[in-house]
Amino acid sequence: MTDEREQGTIRVGVLGAGGRMGAEVCKAVDGAADMKLVATVDQGDALSELTDAGAQVVVDFTTPDVVMDNLRWCVDHGVHAVVGTTGFTEQRLDQVRGWLAGKPGLGVVIAPNFGIGAVLMMQFATRAARYFESVEIIEQHHPRKLDAPSGTATHTARLIAAARAEAGLGPVPDATADEVPGARGADLDGVRVHAVRATGLVAHQEVLFGTTGETLTIRHDSYDRVSFMPGVLLAVRAVRSRPGLTLALDPLLD
Amino acid sequence: MTDEREQGTIRVGVLGAGGRMGAEVCKAVDGAADMKLVATVDQGDALSELTDAGAQVVVDFTTPDVVMDNLRWCVDHGVHAVVGTTGFTEQRLDQVRGWLAGKPGLGVVIAPNFGIGAVLMMQFATRAARYFESVEIIEQHHPRKLDAPSGTATHTARLIAAARAEAGLGPVPDATADEVPGARGADLDGVRVHAVRATGLVAHQEVLFGTTGETLTIRHDSYDRVSFMPGVLLAVRAVRSRPGLTLALDPLLD
Amino acid sequence: MTDEREQGTIRVGVLGAGGRMGAEVCKAVDGAADMKLVATVDQGDALSELTDAGAQVVVDFTTPDVVMDNLRWCVDHGVHAVVGTTGFTEQRLDQVRGWLAGKPGLGVVIAPNFGIGAVLMMQFATRAARYFESVEIIEQHHPRKLDAPSGTATHTARLIAAARAEAGLGPVPDATADEVPGARGADLDGVRVHAVRATGLVAHQEVLFGTTGETLTIRHDSYDRVSFMPGVLLAVRAVRSRPGLTLALDPLLD
Amino acid sequence: MTDEREQGTIRVGVLGAGGRMGAEVCKAVDGAADMKLVATVDQGDALSELTDAGAQVVVDFTTPDVVMDNLRWCVDHGVHAVVGTTGFTEQRLDQVRGWLAGKPGLGVVIAPNFGIGAVLMMQFATRAARYFESVEIIEQHHPRKLDAPSGTATHTARLIAAARAEAGLGPVPDATADEVPGARGADLDGVRVHAVRATGLVAHQEVLFGTTGETLTIRHDSYDRVSFMPGVLLAVRAVRSRPGLTLALDPLLD
Repeated sequence: MTDEREQGTIRVGVLGAGGRMGAEVCKAVDGAADMKLVATVDQGDALSELTDAGAQVVVDFTTPDVVMDNLRWCVDHGVHAVVGTTGFTEQRLDQVRGWLAGKPGLGVVIAPNFGIGAVLMMQFATRAARYFESVEIIEQHHPRKLDAPSGTATHTARLIAAARAEAGLGPVPDATADEVPGARGADLDGVRVHAVRATGLVAHQEVLFGTTGETLTIRHDSYDRVSFMPGVLLAVRAVRSRPGLTLALDPLLD
Repeated sequence: MTDEREQGTIRVGVLGAGGRMGAEVCKAVDGAADMKLVATVDQGDALSELTDAGAQVVVDFTTPDVVMDNLRWCVDHGVHAVVGTTGFTEQRLDQVRGWLAGKPGLGVVIAPNFGIGAVLMMQFATRAARYFESVEIIEQHHPRKLDAPSGTATHTARLIAAARAEAGLGPVPDATADEVPGARGADLDGVRVHAVRATGLVAHQEVLFGTTGETLTIRHDSYDRVSFMPGVLLAVRAVRSRPGLTLALDPLLD
Repeated sequence: MTDEREQGTIRVGVLGAGGRMGAEVCKAVDGAADMKLVATVDQGDALSELTDAGAQVVVDFTTPDVVMDNLRWCVDHGVHAVVGTTGFTEQRLDQVRGWLAGKPGLGVVIAPNFGIGAVLMMQFATRAARYFESVEIIEQHHPRKLDAPSGTATHTARLIAAARAEAGLGPVPDATADEVPGARGADLDGVRVHAVRATGLVAHQEVLFGTTGETLTIRHDSYDRVSFMPGVLLAVRAVRSRPGLTLALDPLLD
Repeated sequence: MTDEREQGTIRVGVLGAGGRMGAEVCKAVDGAADMKLVATVDQGDALSELTDAGAQVVVDFTTPDVVMDNLRWCVDHGVHAVVGTTGFTEQRLDQVRGWLAGKPGLGVVIAPNFGIGAVLMMQFATRAARYFESVEIIEQHHPRKLDAPSGTATHTARLIAAARAEAGLGPVPDATADEVPGARGADLDGVRVHAVRATGLVAHQEVLFGTTGETLTIRHDSYDRVSFMPGVLLAVRAVRSRPGLTLALDPLLD
């Protein structure tokens, strides 16, 4: 810490370092010029390793049953936290807000999706929604996926439907009179969503907007869980200057 | 005809010249360096105008109620015919075959689709089908379309399903356990087909094949009915050397 | 105007009504439920027809040599104007600003591109630019186009380059050591732009962003000059509540 | 071999089993229901392990300096071979043909690319070439790639150019008069090729054909070297019934 070359370097600890996502986070922090990986903690390790190593920010990719204890500990010890673990209910979020109330200057970012591309896709889709008569979503995934459509597609459809309603748009035009069941996709709040499944695909989504004589397409292709790493690093950089609880990546993408 | 520059020029007459497709055919023939538009016949005009003008090939884009009379007349007068009119049943085709039996050297081409791109798309899809574990079809059209999926998509799905069966392929892999109704599209002989409808679109189709680590996509975009003209001209050029009845454009695309 | 059903209807006049774009505007205004086409003026007609008909907003798609006289007249007579005519220099814009200075409440919108899809594509591209290591532009047009890349692609590249510079991003990664000249496209301020030309295409542009494990693509397809009409109608609706000079469609897409 | 369940099972040995491709081949053979991995040979191991284990087909992914010795050995011992190793000159191929001349019934398949999707893409592109006025190639790869365009794109362009020449097609239409250098891509025998490089991409290629009012696009996306495995297994299955030397995967895709 006295080394001048470390001026401005963020000291990062990783919780759940042995998991698939945690291991990727360790690699990503290690490769970032402005960060230093100072502690990797997994099941059975003591949380005190984080403070011993002088961690300023902790990244948590653990499990719903331990994440609240981890967060409580971080807040108590004045360590900022970036959390990708799932299972946060409104009740849990309120609890975190309560802990943070007594700690001015301390920040926690909890996000269900650290893919910057996916987050921007949803933002752009929401923004474009009011200007186009038509919109449909086509999501494409590997055939081992259990749900159809994907959670991201469902969320995107809800955002678009809300934006259309706010802008006073009516239903999308559709003269279909003779349909083989399913051809026109699932209807989510009036937005048609098509789920394609094929070996070789990973995770892809296309939002197609159309109006007279033109279409606008926003497409996101994700090939690997490393695609979440730029978003995690972005949150690590931002959390120290965002006191309180920040939900989702959106507010960090000014 | 005595002009040497006309050596090799095909003299073409158009039946239904006043209709939307007929008018496009007239323009296309007019613009083709190796053809000459010698007669345009519409409702109320005499068919004899075709022979008077020395038409060698007649293109018919009329209606199901007059096309058989037109064809009979062409065969009787030794004029080759290229037909885009719809409504041909097996019975009608047999009748045409009967007429042609007594006219060696005379050719008739009847095609439901003169789009070379669409025909090649279906050929390629049929050929690729046996090599890929997964396949799905996404067709996209303007929202005034009444049927979903489109006739071309339905036909493509049938061709693919037949090719898979012949190659001994089992069902495509699909672990979907939790589906919003319609999300996974229409099931046509085991091939999932998704129909997208949006203002601004014209007529598009994508066939997506997938196997371990790779996908192959064949996509056709049609923007205008003029897209059928290269196929019509191809048929006009080919019909004189194809005696008898030729069904669909496929055999002309060696 | 006393008819209660017309409450809220915007009375629109069109200048250059006989031109290709003007004719489309007339059709579009005619088809809009909240507008009434009250005057169509072309070469040789008197501008007073506009005021005689009670036009509240004038749309001008004329030529650079008459547009300044038209605008002067509109401002003098208290008629709002939406202008798609080209040829506006900084000097001309200053002149318009001067005229408007004395007319509080009067609005003029001058836009080089009324395609909402194209404008949103550029906005989204500018916004995404800072979050992705890589970016390239692929524009696709019909082969009769004289310039490569297109004006829109060039403009998009400049916007992206500026956004990258502002965010402190370095050059995009590129290890190319062995290049057939031209393969890597044109270099516009460090952004590679590829211009595809093919019969059958109309006007298309794709901006591809990439970072570790994911890509985000924003694509705009324009099939027809009618694609500009939703943008023209948007401007007609907005101009009455935007006093002064508004440049480009962007500010109207809050 | 006496086990009835093994009837029809192909006994496969892998040369270069420790390399990246070799290791994938071992996994793929192991996972194939109709094959048995009986020997894995790497640097320092004796080739006799292959015959000792009763290998019927050997897959060779080694290096140019040892592959000829390996092949000679296989031919001498009556073992079929499937070879993905590079560096085969016409001279080397003639040598292999000479060895095989004295061994009726023995087969060798040597292929530069085992990606079925890539091979089909090239076949389809070659076949479509004669029917479209315009054609361009857009290949997209990760930014660590040294050559632009890719070898596959260059090969595809050559095949298309040859097919166009054979069909008597002239140059593609292109009115470009004002070009920023490189915008129109590399010119390979008259076919324009564009090479896109971006982080997040793997290996992709699109061939775009256009004619009046329509386009046909053939696109191949490869995400992983496992994408070559279906092609390797296809060759293993086919080589025993294809005596002599087979070059490339094409003839196996009847």
